[in-house]
Amino acid sequence: MSDNKLERMREKTVKSTEIFRGKVLHIYNDEVELPNGKHSFREIIRHCHAAAVLAINDKGEVILEDQYRYPYDDIITEIPAGKGDEREDAIVTAARELEEETGYRAGKMEELGLFYPSVGYTDESIHLFLARDLTYVGQHLDDGEELDYYFVPFDELCNMIKEGKIKDGKTIAAVGYYLLKYKK
Amino acid sequence: MSDNKLERMREKTVKSTEIFRGKVLHIYNDEVELPNGKHSFREIIRHCHAAAVLAINDKGEVILEDQYRYPYDDIITEIPAGKGDEREDAIVTAARELEEETGYRAGKMEELGLFYPSVGYTDESIHLFLARDLTYVGQHLDDGEELDYYFVPFDELCNMIKEGKIKDGKTIAAVGYYLLKYKK
Repeated sequence: MSDNKLERMREKTVKSTEIFRGKVLHIYNDEVELPNGKHSFREIIRHCHAAAVLAINDKGEVILEDQYRYPYDDIITEIPAGKGDEREDAIVTAARELEEETGYRAGKMEELGLFYPSVGYTDESIHLFLARDLTYVGQHLDDGEELDYYFVPFDELCNMIKEGKIKDGKTIAAVGYYLLKYKK
Repeated sequence: MSDNKLERMREKTVKSTEIFRGKVLHIYNDEVELPNGKHSFREIIRHCHAAAVLAINDKGEVILEDQYRYPYDDIITEIPAGKGDEREDAIVTAARELEEETGYRAGKMEELGLFYPSVGYTDESIHLFLARDLTYVGQHLDDGEELDYYFVPFDELCNMIKEGKIKDGKTIAAVGYYLLKYKK
């Protein structure tokens, strides 16, 4: 993006106020100066980076997980994913989470692209990867973590999205990237 | 999803504590009882629903917007979108935001699907629509809202995603849905 456009549209931070520092979420209510000189407030979440993995085996099947997600009070179907450690590269996070959650180690990992979940109020970015050459080495979930995983053919995953059975953003975006980069 | 699996995995709310009630974000730190009987905390954001629009004109070009997004301190390229009013259907939100932000009214609107931005910590859902039969009726931005919009051919939009120029989740998901429902 051209620097001129950024300079023209940029909102300057007048005062940043921390509202909450939790285990997962760091929340700020920042006073900003808009390009027109007026002041406003931006409620934002500072979040660690995360990674997610579209893992495909030699039969063309993808690993999906069913996991209880408290905000929706529902079981959500999604690809393996997790939060990164500050000192950890995204590809390391992705490989680690895939192995912890499903027991599969990937022989090949390629970056699909970045995913910004909700640009209005969080700075979170999820790095999406394609994992192949899968070998089972054993699952080791975090304490209290519970999920079911299973393989579905890629076309079945596409149907699950079309039929509204999958609504998870990073999963749909990973499929979108995969279709654009490998199928189009 | 089977009710048995939901009952087996469900986390029960022990105590919900409101941390912050802002204009955009309502934040809670809830104590929950896990299926194994242990207690934990869930930091979550309750958010209004939102809608976003993949608007395609008769030449097969899509409307994109460049908008400054404070959390990233950057210009983000995305499809038109906005928050819904409690009493408003998502399709009404989508049509209203498209017209306010770009000046285009859609003769035809179809639902592409739902998009959950970040299932771990927010209950936000974005309804994605396809808009066609566009007629220019005049832009009317909210006070302080500033954005540039322009049309790009659909294939160019796909290339922008592949090349990493578009990272916005709802935009990538809308393209993913469109490819799955109309191009596959």
